[in-house]
Amino acid sequence: MDYVYGPGKNHLFVPGPVNIPEPVIRAMNRNNEDYRSPAIPAMTKTLLEDVKKIFKTTTGTPFLFPTTGTGAWESALTNTLSPGDRIVSFLIGQFSLLWIDQQQRLKFNVDVVESEWGQGANLDILAEKLAADHSHTIKAICIVHNETATGVTNNLATVRKLLDHYRHPALLLVDGVSSICALDFRMDEWGVDVALTGSQKALSLPTGIGIVCASPKALEASKSAKSVRVFFDWADYLKFYKLGTYWPYTPSIQLLYGLRAALDLIFEEGLDNVIARHSRLGTATRLAVEAWGLKNCTQKEEWHSDTVTAVLVPPYIDSTEIVKRAWKRYNLSLGLGLNKVAGKVFRIGHLGNLNELQLLGCLAGVEMILKDVGYPVKLGSGVAAACAYLQNNIPMIPSRI
Amino acid sequence: MDYVYGPGKNHLFVPGPVNIPEPVIRAMNRNNEDYRSPAIPAMTKTLLEDVKKIFKTTTGTPFLFPTTGTGAWESALTNTLSPGDRIVSFLIGQFSLLWIDQQQRLKFNVDVVESEWGQGANLDILAEKLAADHSHTIKAICIVHNETATGVTNNLATVRKLLDHYRHPALLLVDGVSSICALDFRMDEWGVDVALTGSQKALSLPTGIGIVCASPKALEASKSAKSVRVFFDWADYLKFYKLGTYWPYTPSIQLLYGLRAALDLIFEEGLDNVIARHSRLGTATRLAVEAWGLKNCTQKEEWHSDTVTAVLVPPYIDSTEIVKRAWKRYNLSLGLGLNKVAGKVFRIGHLGNLNELQLLGCLAGVEMILKDVGYPVKLGSGVAAACAYLQNNIPMIPSRI
Amino acid sequence: MDYVYGPGKNHLFVPGPVNIPEPVIRAMNRNNEDYRSPAIPAMTKTLLEDVKKIFKTTTGTPFLFPTTGTGAWESALTNTLSPGDRIVSFLIGQFSLLWIDQQQRLKFNVDVVESEWGQGANLDILAEKLAADHSHTIKAICIVHNETATGVTNNLATVRKLLDHYRHPALLLVDGVSSICALDFRMDEWGVDVALTGSQKALSLPTGIGIVCASPKALEASKSAKSVRVFFDWADYLKFYKLGTYWPYTPSIQLLYGLRAALDLIFEEGLDNVIARHSRLGTATRLAVEAWGLKNCTQKEEWHSDTVTAVLVPPYIDSTEIVKRAWKRYNLSLGLGLNKVAGKVFRIGHLGNLNELQLLGCLAGVEMILKDVGYPVKLGSGVAAACAYLQNNIPMIPSRI
Amino acid sequence: MDYVYGPGKNHLFVPGPVNIPEPVIRAMNRNNEDYRSPAIPAMTKTLLEDVKKIFKTTTGTPFLFPTTGTGAWESALTNTLSPGDRIVSFLIGQFSLLWIDQQQRLKFNVDVVESEWGQGANLDILAEKLAADHSHTIKAICIVHNETATGVTNNLATVRKLLDHYRHPALLLVDGVSSICALDFRMDEWGVDVALTGSQKALSLPTGIGIVCASPKALEASKSAKSVRVFFDWADYLKFYKLGTYWPYTPSIQLLYGLRAALDLIFEEGLDNVIARHSRLGTATRLAVEAWGLKNCTQKEEWHSDTVTAVLVPPYIDSTEIVKRAWKRYNLSLGLGLNKVAGKVFRIGHLGNLNELQLLGCLAGVEMILKDVGYPVKLGSGVAAACAYLQNNIPMIPSRI
Repeated sequence: MDYVYGPGKNHLFVPGPVNIPEPVIRAMNRNNEDYRSPAIPAMTKTLLEDVKKIFKTTTGTPFLFPTTGTGAWESALTNTLSPGDRIVSFLIGQFSLLWIDQQQRLKFNVDVVESEWGQGANLDILAEKLAADHSHTIKAICIVHNETATGVTNNLATVRKLLDHYRHPALLLVDGVSSICALDFRMDEWGVDVALTGSQKALSLPTGIGIVCASPKALEASKSAKSVRVFFDWADYLKFYKLGTYWPYTPSIQLLYGLRAALDLIFEEGLDNVIARHSRLGTATRLAVEAWGLKNCTQKEEWHSDTVTAVLVPPYIDSTEIVKRAWKRYNLSLGLGLNKVAGKVFRIGHLGNLNELQLLGCLAGVEMILKDVGYPVKLGSGVAAACAYLQNNIPMIPSRI
Repeated sequence: MDYVYGPGKNHLFVPGPVNIPEPVIRAMNRNNEDYRSPAIPAMTKTLLEDVKKIFKTTTGTPFLFPTTGTGAWESALTNTLSPGDRIVSFLIGQFSLLWIDQQQRLKFNVDVVESEWGQGANLDILAEKLAADHSHTIKAICIVHNETATGVTNNLATVRKLLDHYRHPALLLVDGVSSICALDFRMDEWGVDVALTGSQKALSLPTGIGIVCASPKALEASKSAKSVRVFFDWADYLKFYKLGTYWPYTPSIQLLYGLRAALDLIFEEGLDNVIARHSRLGTATRLAVEAWGLKNCTQKEEWHSDTVTAVLVPPYIDSTEIVKRAWKRYNLSLGLGLNKVAGKVFRIGHLGNLNELQLLGCLAGVEMILKDVGYPVKLGSGVAAACAYLQNNIPMIPSRI
Repeated sequence: MDYVYGPGKNHLFVPGPVNIPEPVIRAMNRNNEDYRSPAIPAMTKTLLEDVKKIFKTTTGTPFLFPTTGTGAWESALTNTLSPGDRIVSFLIGQFSLLWIDQQQRLKFNVDVVESEWGQGANLDILAEKLAADHSHTIKAICIVHNETATGVTNNLATVRKLLDHYRHPALLLVDGVSSICALDFRMDEWGVDVALTGSQKALSLPTGIGIVCASPKALEASKSAKSVRVFFDWADYLKFYKLGTYWPYTPSIQLLYGLRAALDLIFEEGLDNVIARHSRLGTATRLAVEAWGLKNCTQKEEWHSDTVTAVLVPPYIDSTEIVKRAWKRYNLSLGLGLNKVAGKVFRIGHLGNLNELQLLGCLAGVEMILKDVGYPVKLGSGVAAACAYLQNNIPMIPSRI
Repeated sequence: MDYVYGPGKNHLFVPGPVNIPEPVIRAMNRNNEDYRSPAIPAMTKTLLEDVKKIFKTTTGTPFLFPTTGTGAWESALTNTLSPGDRIVSFLIGQFSLLWIDQQQRLKFNVDVVESEWGQGANLDILAEKLAADHSHTIKAICIVHNETATGVTNNLATVRKLLDHYRHPALLLVDGVSSICALDFRMDEWGVDVALTGSQKALSLPTGIGIVCASPKALEASKSAKSVRVFFDWADYLKFYKLGTYWPYTPSIQLLYGLRAALDLIFEEGLDNVIARHSRLGTATRLAVEAWGLKNCTQKEEWHSDTVTAVLVPPYIDSTEIVKRAWKRYNLSLGLGLNKVAGKVFRIGHLGNLNELQLLGCLAGVEMILKDVGYPVKLGSGVAAACAYLQNNIPMIPSRI
């Protein structure tokens, strides 16, 4: 039954799905229940209220779809746009590429702004496009907050500034799959119209909930959006929200209890502390990469991601071999390089319910693998660099006696 | 954290989600894993092979969508049909109604064949329509194998016979949500083109996998079907099947292990034994209803469902009160009457991993509730009738020492 | 790995180990922890405080031994008595017999007061012995509150009255294994000196904690008791209680969290409601037995046990066959007749976290088995009798919305 | 309910209780069962056969006591010896001290051979005592294979050689609590008469099973041993072994399934591979300690333990502060210095189901803590030393695809 046996714990450092905390695993360890009993709506109500906090919105309306991030993308697009609508979309890596592919197959007129993989969204070109678009043909800006394939974080505050500057009414749709609940994300302050994430990322749950949050403007847009949709239609949810039963179709009881537990853990730690922890882990990882003499796939510091680091390997090394060896020899799961950067980068995911010593074990493992594959790393160097930083910055765990 | 506290076990007798067996709960009690490691494809391969057995198909291609039954419906329709296509669809209860609503919103030209709730699909009208359709304008027949709202099982063998008789090429799309893995279902023999079910029904898992199985003819149709689809597109899966990585987007690791355990249990019991057990539980329930002097919502024996029994209550009783009381006083979860039969029926779900003594506890509970709400039931009568039948028919459990 | 496969849930009606509630299973679903961290003593403190409530004592000192009921017996005896001490002990069934065997092997001078199996302790003889014992040679009275083998509950209040009447200083040692937390038990009011139970009984946990509670008088006695003891010595615990670290040797982390959850559930339901529920289940069971035309092994109503019912079968039936068949055909676990009543009784345990519909399922099963083995039971009769009583007496579950 | 909250996983590096592998946690995630059903004896039979393998015995008889290591000690002693018997016992640290305390309280005549803490058992003195004991007054040699307080492994092969050399018939009783299933241990080859361990150590289970294994000679001795015992008596078990029901009192169902899973994991990895892994982790830890410029409490290489390393800190540092800080700041659980070495050593447990990257995370944490408390460690130095060794020695995980 177990296909991944090996002594000790698996070290899970892909950028999703991530480690599930024990209290969440416990909360989900249960039989099914009737979701039409009074209990599930009572719990759902708290979930819908609380999930808004991780988007930093008070005016948004959240939807918990039984789906993945790909489904959440589809829900964001089809509820707000009509076939043929012009949208500006940024291609900076594999996941923005896949979203653009979806946008095109959903029959939108996609104005793709491409950057080299390793760079952030080219906002200069956005500025030009907005400046030129006097007739407001652009209906939406689609942007990935954090590109998981290259470890690039885009600057959403600047996107909002540009839209405001040009007084452009385009909707702002944000893929926050590998950012929300880990990076600084402010739905209301940045005027994001639709934001979305998946349960298996920073929320540290199993895959299965696509969380979509819509601004009042997005909700308004959904009334006239002509894209065909049923399963992903917000209107069905809104109908049941009014009835107080919340669910147009059967939710996963286990994931609801799991989400309740996950949110409780996050609020217990404090969302800002969670974000600070991710910053700490991201910084430590980058210091290790630097100490190893390797390059970050992300080309400028302003784009550095605190949830995933894509590490460039020298041309004489195949990064896929690193990932294979990590799995087979060290029980360590690293992220592959995808598409354009296949063989060229490996990725360390450092998001979700994770602490410093877990990361340091991973970094030590990476050092040994680098040596295995012939890279002349100085063993211990990355860990030393990370420790030097962490030792000065890790706070006490307040909940500990 | 627990919204449903009460002493002892909850008696879950809604027709889904159903009781999860302990070995399946155990199998899902785990951390996340990298789904791109060699382990998950190795397991997925066995799942795709084995899941075909519960559809009784050797030629079909299964898809495990991270979705619910509603999503599985959408996948079946959008992959095989184009907007405007004429389809014949049978309205016999709430779930066929919802599917028809989806069909209409997906822009198909739906030829609705309505029956009184409590009756099966009107196949005489189907025969007329097929006979009249010389130019084959009907592209698909959509039928719910088992209408969960009324406890009506349709005769799929007859549908196939009619199609064959009229040499009609329409696709046969079947909602097997509350039938597959519990009722006699034969995808290949009955020439079903798309069949689908959900994990939380007879498979006895949590909600979260919509299983869709496509015949070669359906796969062929998907190449030219013009309905817009991305998340539910079979083509994405087929691409990854060829690559041997199987997953176009992140699956739920927990549900994969759970499905493995669920299938193992079913094959250990024997699929035909599982179906026989459902027949036994269905018969016992109907005998109890009869003993209580109540009517089955299902009007003829040929339509009797072995997975759910909808019980009609006398006009002076509100069936909703029965369901509320079951929950609040007896820790028993029964199904509500929905839509046209709201207040008129309550439903006993008897599907999934369930045994006779569990059902008898439920039936005893229903008797007390009937008395509570003023129906002059003879206490013990239903249980006596059920026991008289069961005592002669329960087999030994072969796996027991 | 699973040696007990069968469709549906196992119906566990042995008088221990009993069904574990889901929240308790969840609480124990965890990794080990360092028991010397500040967390475990903090939790232990709450456990020791709260466990006193189920003994209804404010002056007693509880000990949580990593052992079974047999170990708890040994702890009670060796901490309070010296080899050669005279004790009066009542033999009324298999478990009192085993305790007496232990008492003899521990070299006490046991004055055995035997009753026919099915009768309670002969307190008239106790009165005689106390009256005659002017020189107080009797050091302790050892009595099983509830004899699990015959379903007999002894009257502890009367024992106390006799001791008080004769102003006898003997210690009162009580085996409460199948009573405490299910039957009315009052340590302080009845002047019990040592009371004990096991985690797998009414507390509804796995086996593994033997809970012993000592009165101040018992603690005083332990200072001079000369029985050799180390593992079961209270003094080691008391030393660590003073230090605030509580544990002289490694406790089971899982059982500590489980006990915390079990106590929380009991207090949430209300201990007196728990006891009332046991009374209801016991009464319902006895009414069923009567309706079947069978006799209770317990000879008088005053001794009827609300946690276990031993049912006498006619001479032409072997009760062992009933238990085997229950297991093999109905996935029902009943208690065997033990020793003197082997083959003559089968036992229905109705203690712990259990509700009415669970019991009714069991009773329906027993009816079918009785028919299987040739007893002319009227099917449904026992369930009807139980339902008639329960339907008038089951309260609403207050915690339900 | 959770007293140990902190982001990420707790790093458990006390020398017991140790990390439980996920498959074992899963196996124990279950309801109670009737231990008198045919299933439990069937499983128990396999456990008793397989548990002998970890003792490397074919002639021994194992007993699974529902107790801790302390109880297992008591069982070993009371079944083989009589009050007043002379035994030779080695005092080399806190756990041998506690065992000696038990031996004395059980009224044996203990001939204590003391060594400085950090040294192994003084076998020269044993040789002298054996040589002098012409009349065979020494009835048993009691020795701790691995002293958990100081990280000292005694040489049992030499003990056996001495006994053979002097043709001395004394029983050899071995505490293998922190050795068996992790260190090289050979019951039959070394002529060990009673060996014992606890479930929460190298077997990586929760606390709750004390495993005692008796040689034929020990079994023979138990027939005449006069120590009073009931709960810990082997004779009760042997009686039930003959009956084929195995259990004189209620076992923990969960621990039996857990033990089954734990043994399966060990045999899947291969017991010799498990021992080699412990050797690897022990060596890596000692190399790190050396790189930090610190001393091992263990004074000679021949005594170095591969399951626990006790690290001496400089006089100006309180090792207790290290342990506190590890817990409070790094979510790392280290072992305290106990008794004579309190404040002077901290302990790293590296036993059980553990892998290299877990250990490296711990070592990195220790480095930061050392810096925290003012020790001038070079950050990364220990990890570098450990990695340099491990990178050349870690094998591929054979079970991985």
